[in-house]
Amino acid sequence: MRIDLNSDLGEGFGPWQMGDDAAMLSIVTSANVACGGHASDPETMYKTLCLAKAQGVVVGAHPGFQDPIGFGRRVIPMSPEEIGRMCAAQIGALRAVAALADVSVDYVKPHGALANLAARDASVAEVIVETIQRIDPNLSLLAISGTEPERVARERSLTVYSEIFADRGYLSNGQLVPRGDAGAMIHDPGVATDRLLAFLDSGLMPVVDGPPIPLAAQSICVHGDGPAAVAMARDIRARLTAAGVEISAFLTPGAA
Amino acid sequence: MRIDLNSDLGEGFGPWQMGDDAAMLSIVTSANVACGGHASDPETMYKTLCLAKAQGVVVGAHPGFQDPIGFGRRVIPMSPEEIGRMCAAQIGALRAVAALADVSVDYVKPHGALANLAARDASVAEVIVETIQRIDPNLSLLAISGTEPERVARERSLTVYSEIFADRGYLSNGQLVPRGDAGAMIHDPGVATDRLLAFLDSGLMPVVDGPPIPLAAQSICVHGDGPAAVAMARDIRARLTAAGVEISAFLTPGAA
Amino acid sequence: MRIDLNSDLGEGFGPWQMGDDAAMLSIVTSANVACGGHASDPETMYKTLCLAKAQGVVVGAHPGFQDPIGFGRRVIPMSPEEIGRMCAAQIGALRAVAALADVSVDYVKPHGALANLAARDASVAEVIVETIQRIDPNLSLLAISGTEPERVARERSLTVYSEIFADRGYLSNGQLVPRGDAGAMIHDPGVATDRLLAFLDSGLMPVVDGPPIPLAAQSICVHGDGPAAVAMARDIRARLTAAGVEISAFLTPGAA
Amino acid sequence: MRIDLNSDLGEGFGPWQMGDDAAMLSIVTSANVACGGHASDPETMYKTLCLAKAQGVVVGAHPGFQDPIGFGRRVIPMSPEEIGRMCAAQIGALRAVAALADVSVDYVKPHGALANLAARDASVAEVIVETIQRIDPNLSLLAISGTEPERVARERSLTVYSEIFADRGYLSNGQLVPRGDAGAMIHDPGVATDRLLAFLDSGLMPVVDGPPIPLAAQSICVHGDGPAAVAMARDIRARLTAAGVEISAFLTPGAA
Repeated sequence: MRIDLNSDLGEGFGPWQMGDDAAMLSIVTSANVACGGHASDPETMYKTLCLAKAQGVVVGAHPGFQDPIGFGRRVIPMSPEEIGRMCAAQIGALRAVAALADVSVDYVKPHGALANLAARDASVAEVIVETIQRIDPNLSLLAISGTEPERVARERSLTVYSEIFADRGYLSNGQLVPRGDAGAMIHDPGVATDRLLAFLDSGLMPVVDGPPIPLAAQSICVHGDGPAAVAMARDIRARLTAAGVEISAFLTPGAA
Repeated sequence: MRIDLNSDLGEGFGPWQMGDDAAMLSIVTSANVACGGHASDPETMYKTLCLAKAQGVVVGAHPGFQDPIGFGRRVIPMSPEEIGRMCAAQIGALRAVAALADVSVDYVKPHGALANLAARDASVAEVIVETIQRIDPNLSLLAISGTEPERVARERSLTVYSEIFADRGYLSNGQLVPRGDAGAMIHDPGVATDRLLAFLDSGLMPVVDGPPIPLAAQSICVHGDGPAAVAMARDIRARLTAAGVEISAFLTPGAA
Repeated sequence: MRIDLNSDLGEGFGPWQMGDDAAMLSIVTSANVACGGHASDPETMYKTLCLAKAQGVVVGAHPGFQDPIGFGRRVIPMSPEEIGRMCAAQIGALRAVAALADVSVDYVKPHGALANLAARDASVAEVIVETIQRIDPNLSLLAISGTEPERVARERSLTVYSEIFADRGYLSNGQLVPRGDAGAMIHDPGVATDRLLAFLDSGLMPVVDGPPIPLAAQSICVHGDGPAAVAMARDIRARLTAAGVEISAFLTPGAA
Repeated sequence: MRIDLNSDLGEGFGPWQMGDDAAMLSIVTSANVACGGHASDPETMYKTLCLAKAQGVVVGAHPGFQDPIGFGRRVIPMSPEEIGRMCAAQIGALRAVAALADVSVDYVKPHGALANLAARDASVAEVIVETIQRIDPNLSLLAISGTEPERVARERSLTVYSEIFADRGYLSNGQLVPRGDAGAMIHDPGVATDRLLAFLDSGLMPVVDGPPIPLAAQSICVHGDGPAAVAMARDIRARLTAAGVEISAFLTPGAA
């Protein structure tokens, strides 16, 4: 068994930090790096990219709604076309800063409310896939397993990898339990790892409202921004490794 | 005699417009398109790029200090390295939006206080040249004639074109008369054109504080954002054409 | 017959203008001044307040969603309490800048998507009314006639004045026809004025989907930001005056 | 001996925190609360004000340059008049949010680069004093001891209190050693407290470049945003108390 660990990183803003990026980058194999939408600025991007490079972690762009105050967790009303242009500007910004850091940006993973919107809205998923292909057809998409972006990317021949969440509860329809609802968050690393091992073994993911559902995934998303995030991620990685799971990136750095 | 006309365009912001981009794009041959620093946002970029494409106008990125309220006319204290990262993020944003518009971004021209700072500060000029080369060595630089960026670009083998200003007074040291000082602005298109024709003929540019100075230029910058900007630019173009000057871009679209 | 004319003004942002404030301030009797949410910044506030003072126009605060790119026309998902705090910060900012300009801010009128949300959502209307009263109980509210804020203000003893729109179509439920739908905008000043005179005479407002509905209003809102806005407003004022309607503010300056 | 302890608090931004406000508010007697310039937003203001109220801590407004990315530590080129309008908008925003929290804002203390600029530039000091008086003449100023704002406030009869810094080195001219220079920061709480006790006893403050200089101060500023800030502040308070110094606010809450 072999799986990637990814995390949302580089989510500081000017003087403000979010989580412990250096520690997380010693744990994960793929880093979703914020690119100035829901978080980050050129300095934060550059520092994060340099840290990722030093740890040999594969880098993806992590675009979100242009709403730092809301951290990209609010749906800003926009047309799909506007969403495409917004994502393009963010992905392009990160790629150019990455050129200064001599780092390759190899995939794209939408953030927060944008990811949730794309997961259920085909027109948003389509514009994201098309935007990525227009910028660089060698980029891959990291999608939430079982959602619209995964389907659209396959349909349009964009390389797509899928992720499951280590610490978020699932619904029968494959979507995440909304933050704030019961079962939304899993705080115990043992519970989280047992669930992941069961999934890796069977391909079936437990949900809060029914029997386990089939999901495919090449990556597990671990959160980087809570107070206990680093310990949780480290514990999950150790438990997976101890159970014989190989932790390695779904992509080779420089793929795009 | 043959010369390019360039103008700073796409300098709106959200619902706000700055000047008449559609009219200016029917006059100039190169468009310096704002990229989210001193002005613009993804929608404004996209609209401007589409207009430029429709008119066959060559497009350059126009990065500036990240200061919309000050329109990039205030020096924000930053290290050269920070300036490089800031420029990279803006250039990258525009290039990615341009990919959606199927437009090539072929050169870079710094804006406002950033351009003035680079004109006199070698370390800022160097970081701008290096940033451009790291992003794409096929990009060119459009520099203010006789200034540090022009010199550094030549030294480092970055293709560089030079501009003079149609409506700004010059000092003996080759810098512009600061806005607000006497002779900073030329408002009469006849006066402006006579000066340009004299320069095109002799290679010598009149200055406010001494005899004409030698300058080399492949482009004339006409302003796009004042109330009389369109009429001034149109008048200058007509007068230059009538005097036998060919108006054409210094670059072929898609050069980068 | 006597009525106030109000308009949304001071909606520039840094170097960008929106409409011709000086001209509009020679026409209207009350100015809804943007306060840094959907538009404006301290310099724009100050200039607008000085212009309003010079023309003897009554000033109100015009808070909106903190979204300049969307010009306050997008609903940003927020709780009513968050909306209250956002409005407070904006109203307080304008009042303090007004103290420098020796101008009194006498009323509050919500902007755009915030106004439309408050019009139909009692919890938002309530938090706006409470916010105004906590800041200064002598402030008044300028509400869209027939909507929740008008009702809540009366219920809670906040002085409230009501407005109708000169150039916007109405629905039978008293709400505006959404922008983009047929009948949303009235472009002919004659048609607009005839409708206003009929309303002033009868208290009944024509709607696009049924018989005229009863509305009460002490003010008519004229738009300030379209290309033909000044001419439209000037024409309506002249036609109303010619028909014997007295144009005067609903408040005395310095009431709050 | 009796002295106030003040700290810069409420310096988060949207989802980002800066320091441990709750802990600091259990230590200090006056809180300089950021008001949307260098940091903060309406929600952060409100939460900070509620925490300060719960701890009985006196609240001041802490305006700074409108530059969150630079955290107000960069001088943004502005005229004194523009600085006055910028400060007014921030102070007014905090006062209005404070009205919702039922908290009185009793004084003003400029932040970072703005404070350092005002300390040495009489025209900036004058506009800040005048701005405070125009907003509410009952507000006080908290100034850096021995600087222009202190002098101007006395001259213009604005109540002024003066502060010294617990952990910053001083120069003979009474200004702070610039960040980055040797002696700029004092990291040992014992060293810091010994210096403070010597000052409280003698009225003379040690400097890095000469003999101690006379300073007057009613408050000691302790930093709230470094990793060791809370421990340092708590240690200094304990040592001062143990040495018989009474820690109490320079103002009574609700003074303004």
